[in-house]
Parts: sequence; structure tokens; C-alpha cells
Amino acid sequence: MSTPQHLILVSHDQEGHATGLLPAEADAPQLSVLDASVTRGDGVFETISVGSGHPQALDAHLDRFARSARMLDLPEPDAGLWGDAVHAIAEALAGHEEAWVKTVISRGIEGGSTPTGWAYGSVSPDFRRERTEGVAVALLDRGLRSDVAETAPWLLAGAKTLSYAVNKAAVREAQRRGADDALFVSSDGLLLEGPTSTLIVLHDRALVTPPAALGILPGTTQHDLFSAARDWGLDARVDVLRPDDLRTAESAWLVSSLRLAAPIRAVDGAATPVDAGLTAAMNGFLRSRRS
Amino acid sequence: MSTPQHLILVSHDQEGHATGLLPAEADAPQLSVLDASVTRGDGVFETISVGSGHPQALDAHLDRFARSARMLDLPEPDAGLWGDAVHAIAEALAGHEEAWVKTVISRGIEGGSTPTGWAYGSVSPDFRRERTEGVAVALLDRGLRSDVAETAPWLLAGAKTLSYAVNKAAVREAQRRGADDALFVSSDGLLLEGPTSTLIVLHDRALVTPPAALGILPGTTQHDLFSAARDWGLDARVDVLRPDDLRTAESAWLVSSLRLAAPIRAVDGAATPVDAGLTAAMNGFLRSRRS
Repeated sequence: MSTPQHLILVSHDQEGHATGLLPAEADAPQLSVLDASVTRGDGVFETISVGSGHPQALDAHLDRFARSARMLDLPEPDAGLWGDAVHAIAEALAGHEEAWVKTVISRGIEGGSTPTGWAYGSVSPDFRRERTEGVAVALLDRGLRSDVAETAPWLLAGAKTLSYAVNKAAVREAQRRGADDALFVSSDGLLLEGPTSTLIVLHDRALVTPPAALGILPGTTQHDLFSAARDWGLDARVDVLRPDDLRTAESAWLVSSLRLAAPIRAVDGAATPVDAGLTAAMNGFLRSRRS
Repeated sequence: MSTPQHLILVSHDQEGHATGLLPAEADAPQLSVLDASVTRGDGVFETISVGSGHPQALDAHLDRFARSARMLDLPEPDAGLWGDAVHAIAEALAGHEEAWVKTVISRGIEGGSTPTGWAYGSVSPDFRRERTEGVAVALLDRGLRSDVAETAPWLLAGAKTLSYAVNKAAVREAQRRGADDALFVSSDGLLLEGPTSTLIVLHDRALVTPPAALGILPGTTQHDLFSAARDWGLDARVDVLRPDDLRTAESAWLVSSLRLAAPIRAVDGAATPVDAGLTAAMNGFLRSRRS
């Protein structure tokens, strides 16, 4: 991502309550080497798209921010103050059609009890190529069974944590295989999600996405697309999907807050159909959101 | 951990080569919110014990630092410069019987190619209670099969990364169960390691530890203990272990660089035998190391 142009620190007290917002110098070092975000990837985050100054799906992002914090036994984020921080940065980016704000909260300096929080934002990269030409994906084993969210919650499957080294390694492996992105499969053979995106498959005029209960992130972009499906004459439902479903799909997408709907054009080197018209309609809808 | 008293930045160029050491203010913020260590837990680390100014098992730690970096496709750390940084901090801590130095390298500022590196150190916490009274452990599913290091290297099993949120969550879950620490089990039922320690089990006068090929960290403390096993009339070998082996063991330990050998006094609430004499001999040996 590009250099952040806007940074706001969200200060907290020792009980974990947010106490205020403090604009800070984006180009200066701000974090101690002892912060748990650095030493242990021990924190959670959200990335919120901003359309011409309007944060998109902000409530859904802040809900998920709180959900991730609960999964890590972090203090509940103060939705009001965090919302204020996002809006302040979004307004400063109002001159750009596509921008982003990221919110982060960590367990704070090791040995203490005061969380560290901050929000920052900048202009979005140009994703036009991915949105029109699509992305080639490689299916990669996530290593975990589809039941771990219930049977082993300490594995934090489905929490949006700062411990994303595996997600980055998976993208590098996908690129080594000649693909653009990865799509994770559970160890028992169910399609899950991309390292930073949600899977949607079109089957029999219905958009289908895998259930969050499989230990994946509930997608905010997927949620908004599902709410608009009827406008495109489509049903929408949550259901388990297997690699064969992807290969027989009429179309499929990886959707996320910044890249939006990127059609999948190949799976493990085999071309898959791209619905250019529907993709353009999806991305037009997503970009036009004003909340 | 306590506040670092000593911090040295290890500067790098855009090709990933280390270029020099720069002492820095330990109490001041040093890291950008855009550093990959913060945003993605995308880096690796080592924690090296220091006995009266002498780094212990330094070569083994630097070898493992390089191994972890390779697993994450990071540039090879410069063993000479990193060793100099560790020695400089260790000398500043020579007045303390037990101290530590941590080395960290991340992928650097997002979008760039210059790694961020630093080393810092301080006095060790007091682990006398854990070393004598022992630790109660809870067995927790690691979610991954024992073959993932070979079949799915992008899961980074066995790399010492900054993405340790799951390790921290596992310890919290163990504490919720009334234990002190966790011991991970593979999804196919093999004993693995603790979140920050290596398992050693005593069976028939032999120290036994699980193979690194199961996707666990090769233990530097375990390695030194194995090299000294004959002094205590013991054999030492690497072998797969199952939960039943732990319950029938003559004794067992979680060993790590700072806490050293902590005898396991209970597994899932059932008391297990502690060999106080052998434990004291192990810790005396570990503390007396001068390289």
C-alpha cells in the first residue's frame, strides 16, 4: 500500500477503554518495538473502503472489528470513537473516488494492559485490471479442518488478526504456481476464502458463498452484494462449496473491500468463465455505496 | 517482558543486505504503522539467553533465524552483523546473571523492498518457581496434520514468525482450563511443542523429543540438553510421541531459551512425576553455558 497520508492514534486507558483521538505524523515512527502488534501479531484490524469521502459498510466493518477483538480476548472497541476516527480520515480523502482507512488495535506494550489503537488511510491502488481481466487462483490447503472454529477456537480461524504471515506466504506460493492469488481449501476438502477476500460462486442463477462457521471471515463486501442480488435477478445463499463446484460454476469472484469483485478467470491453470457484464454491475454498485 | 534497556537497529539496503548497526533510544517509538511486522506479522525472530554477558547457543539461534527467514522468502540475515548486535547488547547486560536479547527482521515498509531489522535486550524475568515447582499443561489441538511442513510449506509450520497470535490464544485457553501453559497436538494425534517451548520426555533412561519434520521449531535449548545427556547417564533421541507417552513418562519438560527446563507437573489436570534432581542438573548446565 502507498504511504499513509493521514494517521490518528486512538488512545486507551489501562482498563482498555478508548479515551480520545490524537492526530499524528504519518511519516514518523509511532510504535515501540515492544508493542504486541509487532512482537506477536497480537491484534486485529479492518480495512474500510472510502468512496469520495464516504466510508462504505462502516457499521459492518466495526461489528467485525469487535467480533475479532472478542475472539482474541481484547477489550471491546468503542464503536463511536473508532467511527469518528474513520470519518475524520475519510473526509480528508474526499477528493479521491477510491480510498481506504485501516483500523488497528493491539494488546499494547508487552506486560501492560493498555491497548494500542490507530487508524490511517490513503488513496487506493488501481485495481481496474483485476476487476476486468480477472485473477487466476491456485487452490491451497489451509491445513485446518472445516470444524475448527467450533472445536478449537484458540486457532482464531475467522478472526481478522495481525498474524497474517501465512496469508502472505500463500499468495507467494500461488504466484510461484503462475497464479495471481490463492484460494484456501480446508483439510477436509471444502472451499474457504482467499487470503484477503471472500469467495462467491454463481450456480443456477444464485450467488453462493461458504458459511462463516467453516472458520472464515464473514465478508462485508459479500454481504452487500448479496443484499443487491435481486437487482440482478439472482438469488443468494450461504452453502458449502467444493473444488468441483468452482469448476462447474457459471462464474466466480474473489470479493474484498478495496479490490471489490475480481472475477476468477482460472483455477489451477484451467480457464473458468468470466461474466463481464455482471462483474461490471457488481463493481458499479459497490463503488456507488455511500454508507 | 520488561522494558528493553538496549536497542540496536540493523539497517538494510533495498537489496536486503544488512549495512550497519545503529544504537537507538529504547523508550522512543521506532516503527512505522506501515511496517510489515505490524501490519501482517510478516517477519521472524529469535530470543537468545545471555548468562553474565555471554550469549548462549548464539550460533544455533542465528542458524535458526536464517532458516525461518528462508521459509518466509526473506533475505538471508548477515550472521556477522547480527552477531555483533547481540554481543553488544549482551555486554551491556554483563552485570546480570540472566538476561536476553531478541533479534527481529521484517519484510519492511509495505510496498518497499528494504527489510527492517532490530535487536534489543533486557534482564530476564524470575523463572525460579516454574523451574522448581513445574508447569501444568493443557493439551490443545494445533489443527494441522503432522505432515504439513512437507505438504503445505506455505503454512510456515516450524518457522519462528511474528505471527504468534494463535500461540498467545492457546496459552490463554490453557489458563482458562486451570493450566499454566499449552502443549500442541497435531490433528492426527502426535505431540508437537509448546507455544514457546520444546517438549522433552524421559522414557527408559532416554530423553526423547519430537522430530522437527512434524512442523515444529528445532529447539536450541533441547539441542544443548541432548548434547549433555550422557553426563547424566541418559541416552537422547528424536522420535514421535503421543499423549499416552506423556502420561507414562518418568518425567517431562517444556524447555526454552529463557525459562530453561520447566518440568511438567500435570497434564490436563492429572499429576505427572517431576524429577527434581535431574531438572536442577539440567538448569545448572543451561545457566552455566558461556557460548
